[in-house]
Amino acid sequence: MIDIDQHFAALEQRISATWGEILDNSPLAMSIRTGEFSKELYMIYMLETYHYTSHNARNQALAGVAHPENPVYMKFCFDHAADEAGHELMALHDLRSLGDTSDDLPLPAPLPSTETLIAYLYWTSKHGNPFRRLGYSVWAESSYQYINPLVGKVKEQLGLKDSQLTFFVAHSAIDEEHAREVRNVIERVAKTASDWDAIGETAEVSLRLTGRMLDEVHTEYMKLASGRPSRYSAVCDALFSR
Amino acid sequence: MIDIDQHFAALEQRISATWGEILDNSPLAMSIRTGEFSKELYMIYMLETYHYTSHNARNQALAGVAHPENPVYMKFCFDHAADEAGHELMALHDLRSLGDTSDDLPLPAPLPSTETLIAYLYWTSKHGNPFRRLGYSVWAESSYQYINPLVGKVKEQLGLKDSQLTFFVAHSAIDEEHAREVRNVIERVAKTASDWDAIGETAEVSLRLTGRMLDEVHTEYMKLASGRPSRYSAVCDALFSR
Amino acid sequence: MIDIDQHFAALEQRISATWGEILDNSPLAMSIRTGEFSKELYMIYMLETYHYTSHNARNQALAGVAHPENPVYMKFCFDHAADEAGHELMALHDLRSLGDTSDDLPLPAPLPSTETLIAYLYWTSKHGNPFRRLGYSVWAESSYQYINPLVGKVKEQLGLKDSQLTFFVAHSAIDEEHAREVRNVIERVAKTASDWDAIGETAEVSLRLTGRMLDEVHTEYMKLASGRPSRYSAVCDALFSR
Amino acid sequence: MIDIDQHFAALEQRISATWGEILDNSPLAMSIRTGEFSKELYMIYMLETYHYTSHNARNQALAGVAHPENPVYMKFCFDHAADEAGHELMALHDLRSLGDTSDDLPLPAPLPSTETLIAYLYWTSKHGNPFRRLGYSVWAESSYQYINPLVGKVKEQLGLKDSQLTFFVAHSAIDEEHAREVRNVIERVAKTASDWDAIGETAEVSLRLTGRMLDEVHTEYMKLASGRPSRYSAVCDALFSR
Repeated sequence: MIDIDQHFAALEQRISATWGEILDNSPLAMSIRTGEFSKELYMIYMLETYHYTSHNARNQALAGVAHPENPVYMKFCFDHAADEAGHELMALHDLRSLGDTSDDLPLPAPLPSTETLIAYLYWTSKHGNPFRRLGYSVWAESSYQYINPLVGKVKEQLGLKDSQLTFFVAHSAIDEEHAREVRNVIERVAKTASDWDAIGETAEVSLRLTGRMLDEVHTEYMKLASGRPSRYSAVCDALFSR
Repeated sequence: MIDIDQHFAALEQRISATWGEILDNSPLAMSIRTGEFSKELYMIYMLETYHYTSHNARNQALAGVAHPENPVYMKFCFDHAADEAGHELMALHDLRSLGDTSDDLPLPAPLPSTETLIAYLYWTSKHGNPFRRLGYSVWAESSYQYINPLVGKVKEQLGLKDSQLTFFVAHSAIDEEHAREVRNVIERVAKTASDWDAIGETAEVSLRLTGRMLDEVHTEYMKLASGRPSRYSAVCDALFSR
Repeated sequence: MIDIDQHFAALEQRISATWGEILDNSPLAMSIRTGEFSKELYMIYMLETYHYTSHNARNQALAGVAHPENPVYMKFCFDHAADEAGHELMALHDLRSLGDTSDDLPLPAPLPSTETLIAYLYWTSKHGNPFRRLGYSVWAESSYQYINPLVGKVKEQLGLKDSQLTFFVAHSAIDEEHAREVRNVIERVAKTASDWDAIGETAEVSLRLTGRMLDEVHTEYMKLASGRPSRYSAVCDALFSR
Repeated sequence: MIDIDQHFAALEQRISATWGEILDNSPLAMSIRTGEFSKELYMIYMLETYHYTSHNARNQALAGVAHPENPVYMKFCFDHAADEAGHELMALHDLRSLGDTSDDLPLPAPLPSTETLIAYLYWTSKHGNPFRRLGYSVWAESSYQYINPLVGKVKEQLGLKDSQLTFFVAHSAIDEEHAREVRNVIERVAKTASDWDAIGETAEVSLRLTGRMLDEVHTEYMKLASGRPSRYSAVCDALFSR
């Protein structure tokens, strides 16, 4: 019998390896490391972050609605959903802080890769192993170790203040506590190898879909930067009065 | 312009009048007042209570999933759902305490009127005015003034201890705080006459559907008491080793 | 073993007895028989018919979405949903034909009893025994024997032409074929006593909820006829230029 | 104003270009062209095909449930869903025909890429532009021109009879008619540039997600062929008595 620490170690190893692959191959990460980016890249990234984040509390709650068998898990889902509610407003705040308009921003629809991530998260919340949405939480709530170096570089190069990075700064503090809670609930509910497999697969798949979103963010940035037609033109105009 | 206190007064008046109608005409209430009942009546009532209660946290959460526009409301829905999660276990506990078996009870399916109430609560959580499920909470969380006299009579006649009435005793303490929170969130989200109308209608309709459940509970009790075939025979046998 | 004809006979007997109870006690049916009604009664009835009919194709399709195990049943659900799609437009047409306006009608929201029926039909389509929504179809598609006398009286007294009764005339022709298909699919899918019970219960419950809708239609008519404030005032004004 | 033929030409061009990219880069297509494959590759492919096909009728129906505004479209969705119901059984039949067992096959769960495609199709059926699921139908119902050369090669090399290719043979005949119907309903419902954009985007995205499924099928085949641990071991054993 494998003990719970071995399961967690395997899960963390799987997540860490996937992050490694993503960061090693991500044109977006490379752009940031080499400094070949401008505030428009951050804008696009925050817009897509706004989109998927605006669904996180809801698909988290749906996991509880769909899986009433275990009251501990159901309660966790609703509690966690309450904690996540409104976090997209931090993304929106940071996005707005890039410009100085008080007008409503003309937000473009989510990119296909963002929408695919959203669709997958709803699907896993409602279907298959009851606990597998925890696989998303487990990496999302502890992703800061992987992305903080990139966020730091963005902050420095764009001269952003902490008050323009509320999503990352505040969120990363909140998420430490969440990460503990997620780990705690996994300990309480994951009983079988198949539970752990499902959590691990959902972790890896949702992280890879996030990686594809990063790729598409970069592709869109290149389009915008090179003056090609872009779905982000209107929001750029509104923010930066170009 | 009507102020918020007038809206609350009208809402409470509507609920109070509906309770009055129900209690005045309810054969179940009459049976209890006149003492013409046995533990089987309480058993049937707790079974149906178990059924609808087991959906309350879930339809409460769905109201938040379906209505993301107002983050205050969405957060309330998820928080409140977390608080309600597992309350059906209190109903099940009290039910089991009537007998002395440790076996699984063969629970019959909900009665048609119970299922109609459940169906209506899911529907109102997802469709129509976003805030109208609050109309259910507003009376359900403060129903104890109306039903405590009946519960007291049941307790006395059946010789029940407080530990056999956890659903009512514990729940009624919890619900005082909930009633305040419900009132508080209504103050914050209900802006238009149409919001108040929707909350009032859902309050009255869900209370009337509950009244019909009480009627059907009584009808089923009469069937059982008179020895006619009953969906509750198996659970009676299990509990009372008849 | 009970054979299929006995099951059908019991089902029809249950439906027929329920219709009997409803028609014997319905103030609406009494009003029509005694001629104490005006076109406003028919208007209210068609409005509520419009509302629930506009959901029938959708909840019929959902029964197939929720129950993929039996391909025969799933296909029936989708085929039948396709046949039902748009039938609410017949109700709307007949309603409009009462007046002579070409403006959009200000349709009031469904009555609570109409909404309860709608909610119950969605619920039974998605939850519980897979086949139980057939219980609604089985009476709804052959209801014309019960209501044609009433429709005939309405037609005569209000001087309506067949072209103003498309919902009933066309629908009743279509539904003969549907009634055969419903019976046919029940024969193919209902295998157990519990299937037949579920179909029978849903038939009776949905018919009783329809009966309550008829009661509330009559109550609303009395309010309107006696000049009390009514949710139907605006549509009356639009139709009848009062 | 762009006319409808131009819209269709642009749509077909977008689909054709995406197919081109996929087929040019697909390791699976390359394997087939060069003959480096065995019946296990076809088995894995048919298994994944079985999985996503088993959801197609249901998400097609949901598009109608979610979008009642246009009765023509709603009726198409339900009709088309009825036509698609049970098509996964053809895939299952062809899969079984590879072996000679009459036992139930131990079907592994869908691959992550298959599940992502399924999740995306449900999402687009329920959310966003009402008509966009047509973008999936428009390429899926006329995909045979792109994949028939590959199917022909598989058939020849594995010595399959037409009766073992019912999914492709029968399906491709059925789909010609469907392709006409899909084109016809697009003509009737797509009114705005935004409708056409949504249809085009969903076509491209769902085709790319299918391409990723092909990639993962090939990866899994390589694992299986090289004797590494595989989720397909049990079904292989059952089919081929290895």
